[in-house]
Amino acid sequence: MKELFNKYPRSLIRKISQVKALFFDVDGVWTNGAIIYDESGKETKVFNVKDGQIISHLRKAGMITGVISGRESGAVSKRATELRLDFCHQGIVDKAAVFSKLLGVHQLKKKEVIYIGDDINDLQVLRQCGVSACPMDAPIYIRKEVDIVTKASGGNGVVREVADLILASKGYLDKILKA
Amino acid sequence: MKELFNKYPRSLIRKISQVKALFFDVDGVWTNGAIIYDESGKETKVFNVKDGQIISHLRKAGMITGVISGRESGAVSKRATELRLDFCHQGIVDKAAVFSKLLGVHQLKKKEVIYIGDDINDLQVLRQCGVSACPMDAPIYIRKEVDIVTKASGGNGVVREVADLILASKGYLDKILKA
Amino acid sequence: MKELFNKYPRSLIRKISQVKALFFDVDGVWTNGAIIYDESGKETKVFNVKDGQIISHLRKAGMITGVISGRESGAVSKRATELRLDFCHQGIVDKAAVFSKLLGVHQLKKKEVIYIGDDINDLQVLRQCGVSACPMDAPIYIRKEVDIVTKASGGNGVVREVADLILASKGYLDKILKA
Amino acid sequence: MKELFNKYPRSLIRKISQVKALFFDVDGVWTNGAIIYDESGKETKVFNVKDGQIISHLRKAGMITGVISGRESGAVSKRATELRLDFCHQGIVDKAAVFSKLLGVHQLKKKEVIYIGDDINDLQVLRQCGVSACPMDAPIYIRKEVDIVTKASGGNGVVREVADLILASKGYLDKILKA
Repeated sequence: MKELFNKYPRSLIRKISQVKALFFDVDGVWTNGAIIYDESGKETKVFNVKDGQIISHLRKAGMITGVISGRESGAVSKRATELRLDFCHQGIVDKAAVFSKLLGVHQLKKKEVIYIGDDINDLQVLRQCGVSACPMDAPIYIRKEVDIVTKASGGNGVVREVADLILASKGYLDKILKA
Repeated sequence: MKELFNKYPRSLIRKISQVKALFFDVDGVWTNGAIIYDESGKETKVFNVKDGQIISHLRKAGMITGVISGRESGAVSKRATELRLDFCHQGIVDKAAVFSKLLGVHQLKKKEVIYIGDDINDLQVLRQCGVSACPMDAPIYIRKEVDIVTKASGGNGVVREVADLILASKGYLDKILKA
Repeated sequence: MKELFNKYPRSLIRKISQVKALFFDVDGVWTNGAIIYDESGKETKVFNVKDGQIISHLRKAGMITGVISGRESGAVSKRATELRLDFCHQGIVDKAAVFSKLLGVHQLKKKEVIYIGDDINDLQVLRQCGVSACPMDAPIYIRKEVDIVTKASGGNGVVREVADLILASKGYLDKILKA
Repeated sequence: MKELFNKYPRSLIRKISQVKALFFDVDGVWTNGAIIYDESGKETKVFNVKDGQIISHLRKAGMITGVISGRESGAVSKRATELRLDFCHQGIVDKAAVFSKLLGVHQLKKKEVIYIGDDINDLQVLRQCGVSACPMDAPIYIRKEVDIVTKASGGNGVVREVADLILASKGYLDKILKA
């Protein structure tokens, strides 16, 4: 599946092939940014099956995965548990501080982490991590700062697209498809 | 309604005209892939009326219809019952095994089944069935392997589009529209 | 607002200017066709504020409005009541029979009714009414039979688009905008 | 971020740079116009995280923000509270009257207010305020009357797009991105 690489310089593909972890924001990345309330204020979240189905393959490839979200929702906890992510940090004001701690906990170097975010409160992590990504519908001033602008918009397979790149760059994707 | 055939080679239309069953995955096929949770983890599913309205016409044409889904949801059971599908197998890890059993139960040959799926866990069935189909928004490595890539994206009439092809190829569609 | 007429022949605009009633299907017309169930089978419906906001202006212009739907939902009842439609017939198998009765009840001639539908079970009414309309995302064999294919897809202002045409053709729209 | 201004005349940017308040309609502006009911008539609303995340930056820049909505919903109250808007007026029939009162309460001149609306009941306020805006999917007769037609459709970042223009025109946006 080398055709997934067409859009990107070879040096970036090499960097992607060396990452060990995929961290992500939730709203606008896993979702299309929808904040859904009923009359009593109960919240609902909409994820995408495409993003979820690739997580088990990332895990088998040894990747660490987890959420760093500024908001907080039981729906995100359920999805994180279901997909067996390594961590799910919600309600985070200072994402850069959490990012630093996570590097220590999981013994990772900055350059070994891909981070996907879509807004101002993601900028500091996007600037520090090894490979940065955002959805194609992120604000222009976010898109200008990242290595990868996905073809997918938020909620339409952003995580899947980055995960496919990781698995292909490491040589796993062809094996998965032949199985 | 021969204009529905424009996109496809005559040999494929002949194969479609000979099928006796339509099996399908749910998430990303009947739906746009949305996995919807509220705060307590209760799930909601979004189907499309276009897909449902054609099922009764497939049944009158003698077609066997049913679900093979990797996930599990009460909403899918309700929709399957409402549409009077012949079966609804959910929570399936090995779809190919279920597919084989279904051939026996319903006395079908592989070439008599159209299967619609959209992801890696559908690949083995897509490779075995008589006619394979996926939505236009399936991953590129799925689209490359199927006979039919629908014009519709998941949840926007994928099943309807394939069902219309079946009914038109068998000569039923013109009769339905004249009734 | 004569520019709303650009797309249509003058003879059609004249016919529209003479209608006294607007009847419509719900799923795929007022909605994008989404059939939404939670785990227990409870249904949710998604309407569009654009469609609703014009109904009071149709009423002031003396138009009769109402629903003829093949399905049945409490959400549709609530929306119909809120918008003060003249009737709301749900769970209808034979729409043509209901259409005939409605002509009698409301003392209307066929040519005085615009009907908006999007599928096979709407065809007989679409063929009888004075002006027929469907959304741009209806099946090709529906679109081929109607006078008006709206620019809007189902759920994205189909009723509004037809209502604006009616109000403009009767000379009401300019007055509403000047008020 | 001067590139945000490309689409607009310099005189408009100057007017935007002088506003002190951003008022907005809800349905079709904060949302895509979806009116969502379950079987019992309970309403749900879908907002966008992009719109919400910029509100705190508007507040730090001294802007007054608030809702003038024709409809009424607990979901809107929750969102307004969460975002700490200065006011949230719902169920408003005469928006122009409320607009006038708000000018008095907050000691604002008309020209100091940007208003975002999308339909007929917003027209009088759109015609009075200093800078008027509507989403790209508002009816043509609304789009013709406003200063700004956003690139975003309703629910897809309309408020964010206007807020970014305000913050950029006042010179705040570059500082926020450098922080």
